[in-house]
Amino acid sequence: MGFPVRKCALIGRFVDPRVAESMGTLLPHLKSRGIQVLVSADADIPDGLNGVTRLSEEEVAGQADLLIAIGGDGTLLYGARMVARHNVPLLGINRGRLGFLTDVMPQDMLPHVDAALEGTLDSEERTLLRARLHRGDGTVVESLALNDIVLQKAATGRMLDFETRVNGKFVNSHSGDGIIVATATGSTAYALSCGGPIVEPHLDVLVMAPICAHTMSDRPIVVSSRSRIEIKLVERFETYAQVACDGVLLGAMEPSVDVLDIEAAKERITLLHPPGHDYYCLLRSKLHWGRGLDPSR
Amino acid sequence: MGFPVRKCALIGRFVDPRVAESMGTLLPHLKSRGIQVLVSADADIPDGLNGVTRLSEEEVAGQADLLIAIGGDGTLLYGARMVARHNVPLLGINRGRLGFLTDVMPQDMLPHVDAALEGTLDSEERTLLRARLHRGDGTVVESLALNDIVLQKAATGRMLDFETRVNGKFVNSHSGDGIIVATATGSTAYALSCGGPIVEPHLDVLVMAPICAHTMSDRPIVVSSRSRIEIKLVERFETYAQVACDGVLLGAMEPSVDVLDIEAAKERITLLHPPGHDYYCLLRSKLHWGRGLDPSR
Amino acid sequence: MGFPVRKCALIGRFVDPRVAESMGTLLPHLKSRGIQVLVSADADIPDGLNGVTRLSEEEVAGQADLLIAIGGDGTLLYGARMVARHNVPLLGINRGRLGFLTDVMPQDMLPHVDAALEGTLDSEERTLLRARLHRGDGTVVESLALNDIVLQKAATGRMLDFETRVNGKFVNSHSGDGIIVATATGSTAYALSCGGPIVEPHLDVLVMAPICAHTMSDRPIVVSSRSRIEIKLVERFETYAQVACDGVLLGAMEPSVDVLDIEAAKERITLLHPPGHDYYCLLRSKLHWGRGLDPSR
Amino acid sequence: MGFPVRKCALIGRFVDPRVAESMGTLLPHLKSRGIQVLVSADADIPDGLNGVTRLSEEEVAGQADLLIAIGGDGTLLYGARMVARHNVPLLGINRGRLGFLTDVMPQDMLPHVDAALEGTLDSEERTLLRARLHRGDGTVVESLALNDIVLQKAATGRMLDFETRVNGKFVNSHSGDGIIVATATGSTAYALSCGGPIVEPHLDVLVMAPICAHTMSDRPIVVSSRSRIEIKLVERFETYAQVACDGVLLGAMEPSVDVLDIEAAKERITLLHPPGHDYYCLLRSKLHWGRGLDPSR
Repeated sequence: MGFPVRKCALIGRFVDPRVAESMGTLLPHLKSRGIQVLVSADADIPDGLNGVTRLSEEEVAGQADLLIAIGGDGTLLYGARMVARHNVPLLGINRGRLGFLTDVMPQDMLPHVDAALEGTLDSEERTLLRARLHRGDGTVVESLALNDIVLQKAATGRMLDFETRVNGKFVNSHSGDGIIVATATGSTAYALSCGGPIVEPHLDVLVMAPICAHTMSDRPIVVSSRSRIEIKLVERFETYAQVACDGVLLGAMEPSVDVLDIEAAKERITLLHPPGHDYYCLLRSKLHWGRGLDPSR
Repeated sequence: MGFPVRKCALIGRFVDPRVAESMGTLLPHLKSRGIQVLVSADADIPDGLNGVTRLSEEEVAGQADLLIAIGGDGTLLYGARMVARHNVPLLGINRGRLGFLTDVMPQDMLPHVDAALEGTLDSEERTLLRARLHRGDGTVVESLALNDIVLQKAATGRMLDFETRVNGKFVNSHSGDGIIVATATGSTAYALSCGGPIVEPHLDVLVMAPICAHTMSDRPIVVSSRSRIEIKLVERFETYAQVACDGVLLGAMEPSVDVLDIEAAKERITLLHPPGHDYYCLLRSKLHWGRGLDPSR
Repeated sequence: MGFPVRKCALIGRFVDPRVAESMGTLLPHLKSRGIQVLVSADADIPDGLNGVTRLSEEEVAGQADLLIAIGGDGTLLYGARMVARHNVPLLGINRGRLGFLTDVMPQDMLPHVDAALEGTLDSEERTLLRARLHRGDGTVVESLALNDIVLQKAATGRMLDFETRVNGKFVNSHSGDGIIVATATGSTAYALSCGGPIVEPHLDVLVMAPICAHTMSDRPIVVSSRSRIEIKLVERFETYAQVACDGVLLGAMEPSVDVLDIEAAKERITLLHPPGHDYYCLLRSKLHWGRGLDPSR
Repeated sequence: MGFPVRKCALIGRFVDPRVAESMGTLLPHLKSRGIQVLVSADADIPDGLNGVTRLSEEEVAGQADLLIAIGGDGTLLYGARMVARHNVPLLGINRGRLGFLTDVMPQDMLPHVDAALEGTLDSEERTLLRARLHRGDGTVVESLALNDIVLQKAATGRMLDFETRVNGKFVNSHSGDGIIVATATGSTAYALSCGGPIVEPHLDVLVMAPICAHTMSDRPIVVSSRSRIEIKLVERFETYAQVACDGVLLGAMEPSVDVLDIEAAKERITLLHPPGHDYYCLLRSKLHWGRGLDPSR
């Protein structure tokens, strides 16, 4: 990344009218400030949107000084994996509903974008996870994730049996729908739906949250983010399992022979926030806190 | 069913050595009592097991006076759907670990089988569910379930959006991994892993338990077993969903056009239990109750 | 109860300005329709509110044809226990926030009250529980509850050890903060905070929900409302426990010697609802359903 | 602490026969090794136990080179608070059931005690919390806790309304039975029963776990152990609340005027463990992991 920002990558599901609308506002604004706007050649952008430079996704990531993600948290997650190796900061503009990661409201977009261009927004580093799926044939597939890496059942309704190790130490034999390894960032995403705790985003910890565990005492565990987590499937009738990184499939996982290896990546990403960004304020809004039932007890 | 029992169906995963062992003990015992033993022509039975009558599964179900399931609860669930239309009572012999449904221990098998043949075991009726998946093209696929009918995500890690109705009344718009509709019998199976309550098996209620619901207040609901439950998927990016009955796939479900319809079946099944069968005793054993932590508070 | 309504009891925490305001509107309205308004002599009513008949609470309950509770669900719970023996129907006017039991909004009050006076509201019967606390000295204290009967720790932070029986059958030895026995009505109150399910209010079932159970598999159980539930405390260092009925203390409970006995009461109460009352609509509103996180998976 | 150990403090509930038996074995063993055994003058020790030096608890803590706690985790918690200011290492001998903190089995006691005397056991530092309850009248009461500090309702069944702040930032307005602030050590105690995660004991984090929260999205939060947590009760009808440190009452807390302030103490304690101590092995044993239901799905 360099300041002043000269090249700005834009990502989003541009076929969504709300995203297209924000882009329609943002594009002339960026150009009026002399910024070159990079868009992936693969992106499906509306006719009539001129003045963007179409490059391969890899080139966009390599050249941008800033990435602006317009959409929901899923869009920002995609952007985070895209630029992780290039240390490009990310700003998330949501489409109307506040996101945990896309925390700029559309109506506040332009001044915050200007602040991002000038380097006056708050910036915050977040941990990424790296999943390595070691196949029985010696090949390895890998991916990064900002929220979580998930081992989950696939294709059938059958439970999975699997074993977990942390830094080589055996943790547990689990039975259930799978397991989530989430960063602090991802603690408020899928892991929260599986009974995991909320984790302050700056903490150097991970959450291992079993999905619909068969044994009720098989509960979420908080481990150091310097841990190496290893997961193996145990042979069982009709086992079909897959691994997903931030909701994107990495591949199928076979019992006995494959090993899923999860560690914090050496890459980290930088999120830009409006000044005065308050995590707890975001939580209160997203989780509808303080709007309880009318207490009768 | 008729007494005295003349024809007894045997089911089990006979390639499992523990199942084969029990079958090796049971078969001569049944023959010594003059019982004809029916086994599905599809079943993979060990060489050297002679003296069984191989018929189609439909003929086995239609002719048997009693069905003995050797294995885990999954085997008995299979047997229940197989004989549901024929009112054949079921006896479950487990392979070593007590099951909720297969509650005869292998070492106690022979006297209990004798009691079953004589009609002196306790018998208990259980509700079955019928799932009807109405496809957009007008076709309907359907199946019975003793434990549960499950709508679940498939193929990707993406959440499902779906709506539920009870007796035509709109209940909720859900987001999450799916939903379980469980009988009282099934309340201690998958639904329990998803936060559902334990339900006494004789109660005329069903449990609707969301799977990893996105909204934390989207909690299990207990409804009358005379309810008609309707589930529709809402269109959403990358929706892949399927329906399973007692863990067996019924089919894929499409957003917007397909409707999943769940009601208690008019068929019921009859489970045979050893005399003195005690549901709470079974719960204590299966759920490891009373073996708590060493209390420090 | 008799129609047409001639005497109407009013209850509420009248020192609450919102309650006083509703009463100020309601009182002349009732008088203009020739209704005699009964208020407990103990109630703290604002100066200047004239034209109400002050009687003992027992006389109010005995004479009223209708009870109107203004306030939260707690006020209606109080009213339910007050009139349970007299079969007086109840109408709940909430103070601004919708309640599960007080489901008439203040701005809709007058037409619904008129409908109540004319007997044209929907009416619905609800089960009451009766707690009997049998003391070691042979005395018995008892009370009714519309929502729940709760055994809870008191005075110290120490866990309780206690045993439960249903219809004389031993269920479990529990350790934890206590246990809730809730009606279907009470399933959305305290029991819901303790992991209990939502139960459709017309179902003839009760929920036994352990409070902060030490053993994670010690889960809520749904039993028939015709069950007799028995709870005994087990002797343990520093055991202090108490029993509450709808949040009102019934008394302290001693280990070993005292027995808490819970059954459906023979009395039932009648709730009046606006026509078109929809339980699931109420749930959606109270539980903030359908206002999920912005999904990123 | 000094090596070699010359003075060893012994604590336990000596009226418990199993504790007395262990003490009867341990005492001559320690004396045969020339160790002076210190016991609090307040302790209720069996007749005939000679050769111990009775001192005030403060003197015992100040002079001991080692503290041996015989009993459950509660006994070790007591010992931890007792010696926290004196940096005395603790060894826990359990009475038969493995504890999270008392992890030496009685039958293995003597060799492990010898290793403790020689300084060859593994030692591990654990964080302590300090609760400061600032009263409206300007007084402050305070206490240490190794497991948790708990704000809880008292005397009635009424919910508490309270607010939490972390490092001065407002977190949430809660309604419910209270809140637990637990160390990593305490994560497997009360907090686990309230839905909190398991936290590896060496991590520098705390868990804030609401007790039976009224709002379902009011979930456990993991915060840095360098946080300052502030809790205030909000005025509400019939609020009775108290604060407990490791289950020992610190005092009553008043709404509006009192403030409960929680931080990691500067003192830390040292736990001694048998060599090869394995936290996950302890978890598997205590939580009955790997002994699931017989899977039917």
